[in-house]
This record gives sequence, C-alpha cells and structure tokens, in this order.
Amino acid sequence: MGVVVSIGEKGGGGVENLVALTREDMARVNETILSRTGSDVTMIPEVAQHLISSGGKRLRPMLTLATAQLARYTGAGHVKLAASVEFMHTATLLHDDVVDESDLRRGKPSARKVWGNEASVLVGDFLLGQAFKMMVEVGSLQCLDVLSTAAAVIAEGEVMQLAAAKNTATTEDEYLAVIRAKTAALFAAAAEVGPILAGAPEDAQKACRSYGLNLGVAFQLIDDALDYGGTSAKLGKNVGDDFREGKITLPLVLAFRRGTDEERQFWRDSIEKGMSDDTRLSRAIDLLKKHRALEDTVERARHYGEVAKDALALFPASPMRDALGEVVDFCISRAY
Amino acid sequence: MGVVVSIGEKGGGGVENLVALTREDMARVNETILSRTGSDVTMIPEVAQHLISSGGKRLRPMLTLATAQLARYTGAGHVKLAASVEFMHTATLLHDDVVDESDLRRGKPSARKVWGNEASVLVGDFLLGQAFKMMVEVGSLQCLDVLSTAAAVIAEGEVMQLAAAKNTATTEDEYLAVIRAKTAALFAAAAEVGPILAGAPEDAQKACRSYGLNLGVAFQLIDDALDYGGTSAKLGKNVGDDFREGKITLPLVLAFRRGTDEERQFWRDSIEKGMSDDTRLSRAIDLLKKHRALEDTVERARHYGEVAKDALALFPASPMRDALGEVVDFCISRAY
Repeated sequence: MGVVVSIGEKGGGGVENLVALTREDMARVNETILSRTGSDVTMIPEVAQHLISSGGKRLRPMLTLATAQLARYTGAGHVKLAASVEFMHTATLLHDDVVDESDLRRGKPSARKVWGNEASVLVGDFLLGQAFKMMVEVGSLQCLDVLSTAAAVIAEGEVMQLAAAKNTATTEDEYLAVIRAKTAALFAAAAEVGPILAGAPEDAQKACRSYGLNLGVAFQLIDDALDYGGTSAKLGKNVGDDFREGKITLPLVLAFRRGTDEERQFWRDSIEKGMSDDTRLSRAIDLLKKHRALEDTVERARHYGEVAKDALALFPASPMRDALGEVVDFCISRAY
Repeated sequence: MGVVVSIGEKGGGGVENLVALTREDMARVNETILSRTGSDVTMIPEVAQHLISSGGKRLRPMLTLATAQLARYTGAGHVKLAASVEFMHTATLLHDDVVDESDLRRGKPSARKVWGNEASVLVGDFLLGQAFKMMVEVGSLQCLDVLSTAAAVIAEGEVMQLAAAKNTATTEDEYLAVIRAKTAALFAAAAEVGPILAGAPEDAQKACRSYGLNLGVAFQLIDDALDYGGTSAKLGKNVGDDFREGKITLPLVLAFRRGTDEERQFWRDSIEKGMSDDTRLSRAIDLLKKHRALEDTVERARHYGEVAKDALALFPASPMRDALGEVVDFCISRAY
C-alpha cells in the first residue's frame, strides 16, 4: 500500500541534486534511526532494520531536511524530526502489511511473513512511540501538532480505504480523498515541519506543505500507474499486484467509468469477486489501454506535480528549490 | 491481555469515593472521548464506541483526574490528557486482540471478530493519533514526554512478552519487567501527568508516578490470579483463559519453579505444546493450590499495593488521598 520510492533506479536525472544537498544531514538521520531502533528486546531492532534497510530511499525524511535547509534552518532539530517521519512511515508499512495480508514488501518477504502479524503490529507501535518521543525532544509544539495530526489523518485514510475496499463505484474524488489522507498527508507534514522549525513565515510553511501534499498525490498516482506497468502497460513481474489484491486505484476508477456495461461487469467480477487470474489481468490492461486510463492517471499526476512546483515559486531561486522541483519531474518520469 | 477493571462489581467498598470525587471531570472526559472518536469514516466511531462503551470503568483516566486534583490543579488540561490516556489504552486493547487472536473481550465479541484485524489495527492507530493530538493541544512538553515515553515502553513490553511467550522458564523478575512495561507504565504515566500539569514540585510528580506504577503492577498480578479463579481457585466461566492461551503469568511462574520434574513437564506440555483442555486446566489449578501460587501472587500484589500507598504519604491527608488509597485495597480485594 505504501509508495515505494526507488530513487535513482531509473538511471540518472532528477534526484541526485536533492540527495547531494541533504547527504550530510541524511547521514545523521541514519545514525539516529539506528540508535533509536536499539532495544534489549532483540526482535525490535531485527524487525525495524529489516524494513528500514530494505530499499526505501527515504524521500519523506529527505523532504524535512530539504525544506529546513530551504528555509535556512541552522539548528539540529530537523534530524530528529526527519527520523520521526521515517519511523511513522515504517510503522505504517508494518501495519499495512498486516491489514493487506501482504507476504512481500519491496520484493522481499514482508515482516509479517518473517516474524508474524504480532511483531508487525507491536514493532509498528514501538516505532510510533519512538517517533513521538523524538518529536517531543525537539520541543516544537507546532511541529508536534503537524505530525500528530498527520498520524491521525493517515490512520483515518487507511480506514476510509478499508471501508471503500473493492467498491468499483468509487469516484475519482473519493479516491483522491483517500490518497490525500493515507499517502500525501505524511509528505505534507514532512515538508511543513522544515520551515516551522526554521521559524520561517507562515506563507513559507504553507508553501512547503502544499509542495509536499501535491508531490505526495502525484507520487501515489504514478505508483498506481506503475502497478500496471506504467504508460507502456506491459505485463511483467510485479505488474498487476493491485488488480490481484482487488485494490481500487485511479486507473481502474477511470476505466470503469469510461467502460461499457459489459466491461463494468468485468471489473466488478475481478475486484469484488476476486476473479483476477493472469488472463483477466491481461484483459484488464487491454481495457486500461483502450480507455487511456494509465496515460490519464499520469496526466493527473502531472497536474499535481505542477501545483507542487508552483507552490515553491515564492522562495527565491536556489539550488535547493531547483532540486525540489527536479524531484517532481523525476517522480512523473518514473511512469515512462 | 489488558487489565479489565470492573469497578464496583464486587458490591460496595473501595472505589466509590474516587468515583464520586472525579465524577464531574469524568463526565467531561466522556464527552471528549465521544467527540474525538467522531469521523466521517463511519467504521471509526463504530469500532471505537464498541470498545469504549463495553464495560471498562476507566481507572486509568480517573488516575489522571485524581492526581491533578490531589495536586490542586485548577485548569482544564487534565480532561484531554485523561481522554488521551484512555485512547492509548483502547488502542492497546485493539492491537492486543489482533496479536492474541482473541475473539472475546470482556465477554463480548472482540472488535477484530466483528470488524476484522484490519479495522482493529487501523482504528487503534487512529486513536493513538488522536491521543497525541489532544496531548499536543494541552501543550505541556513534559506531559508529552511522559506519555510518549509510556507509549514506546508499552509497545516494547508487548514485544518483550511476545519474545518470551510460552517460555515456562521465565523468571519472576523477567515477568515483572514485562508487566511493568506493558501494564504499569500507563498507570504510572496517567498518574504522573496530573501533578506535572498542576505545576507541583518534582517530589509530588515522582510520588504520583510511583503510586501509579505500583498500583499497575498490583492490578495486573491480581488479574493474573483472578484468571485462575482468585484465591478460591474455583473452576467457573472465564476461568483458565490464560492457561488455554498458553500465557505465562506469575501464578504459573511460581508453580513451575516450586514443582516436581513431573509437574514441570506438565506445565511445559500445557503451555509450549498447547495441551490445555479442561481436564488439564483442572490439574493446573490443583498444582497452583498445592504450591500456594495464587495466594502468593496476591501477596506479591499486596506488597506492591503497600508501596503505592506509601508513595502518597507525603501528600497531606485529604479525601482524595484517602480515596486513592482505598483503590489499592479494592484492587487487592478483588482476588477474594
């Protein structure tokens, strides 16, 4: 369910500048993450490290570091807040695997597969607790407000998605409300706490929040398109997981609405009744192509990406502002 | 796994005074709980209300209200903190049911049985998020520190218990470390934030924390004894749940250590191999009686209860101090 951020995999372009500009701070975030997952209870570091070291590239904490820097923050609190953001994200992944009954996460056995549902639930809770402890240590009540609100909104979004699960009648607006809550809210909070910590004016805080929120929406939509092979929509490994799991995503929402009665019945049978073998996946991809559902999902993502970039326009030009803009383009380019 | 607090059920004595002294504040806590479990996502209020309205008597939030009053607090923040404490507790129960695969909670179908593991995990996360939001609104960083530390410790204690699960060689000290973390830490935090909020001196804060911690340990030990029918150790409904679930509790730890080789083999087969039918439960209870394991569990609880009462001795005599002392006695008396 989480967005897998595979930065740099597509060979060059896009995120190198952001990575370079945040490299030193990120090294300190990594140290913090390591030291804060330590526990005499050996299962905790094991599970946490399994997930934390297994391939995500930490875009969310990078947003906190980057926006703090953009707002000329000179303190050290952004490191702990960035680590908190990553812990919140990791906790969400652990709980999502239990909710989705996933056996794989980023191509590796999921924590719940290796250690069981119990450990996934509880280590997720432990990481959430540590995240709040770190935020409290930083001591900014406004940052605490932003991040704790995000935690509640994310959980609410996940329940919303659960309640709407397998409902092919989901509208685009409803779907957007879900991903704003369950994915984009953390991007938004991660980006907002940087300027808050820096004591930047409210318009700068709002700008960064808007950047994060819209980037998060774009990111999730591209992820949705990628799950069906991106705009090339080729069958391949890892393609069609959402379809097989009966997940409603924007490509499906669009194809369902644009489809014939017979096609809608096909989607209903696939999603609601779980008829989703490879032959049917192949038909699903044909229908997505027929209705340009993947291209248009990417177009929607491009729209949110543009909003994200414009949000930063009030900051004076700087290497960091450029780097944050490039991340948006990189995110969209993943779909091709 | 959670401690079920059935205040007043044993007909009179013990908690009436505390209930009376906190009645007005508790009404406001209940209003807060209701309003904060509201959500457009209907599953959230449903699940939350199911659990919150199903019989727990809210001892933990009552501790926050009581210790705030004991320290002569005159503000309104204790109401939100008390509600936060109850949300943290409720979230723990929801997650415990998933971890323990429990179908019953306080004699009713558990949330996971009615709504599934998914909703239990996610609504638990939502309540945790709301708990932190409320704490942030109150704005005391020291209270946030105490409660977020408790959240991390509780989760750590649960993982500790998971790692030690079904290990009949668990020592009394190891078991105490588990219940200090998973049960008593929240009692301690709930009692500590009252005087902190009131701006009471550090010795008053420490006294209330110690009271809560030791009461929490006593409470869990009594609960452990009650699970085998209390000191009367009579077979009856709901007796032996821990045994059937293969849970290590103090009565078992004592009986195992005091037992013969043959008896230890019986415990190992029962707990580690899950051989725990009613005939074996009956034998287990006989062994607990033979080794006075339930009486001595209650004696241990009484010890912690005395520590709890002494912790409050530095406060001048007052109806509230007396009421908090009576709660300890009531807690112990449940075992008879």
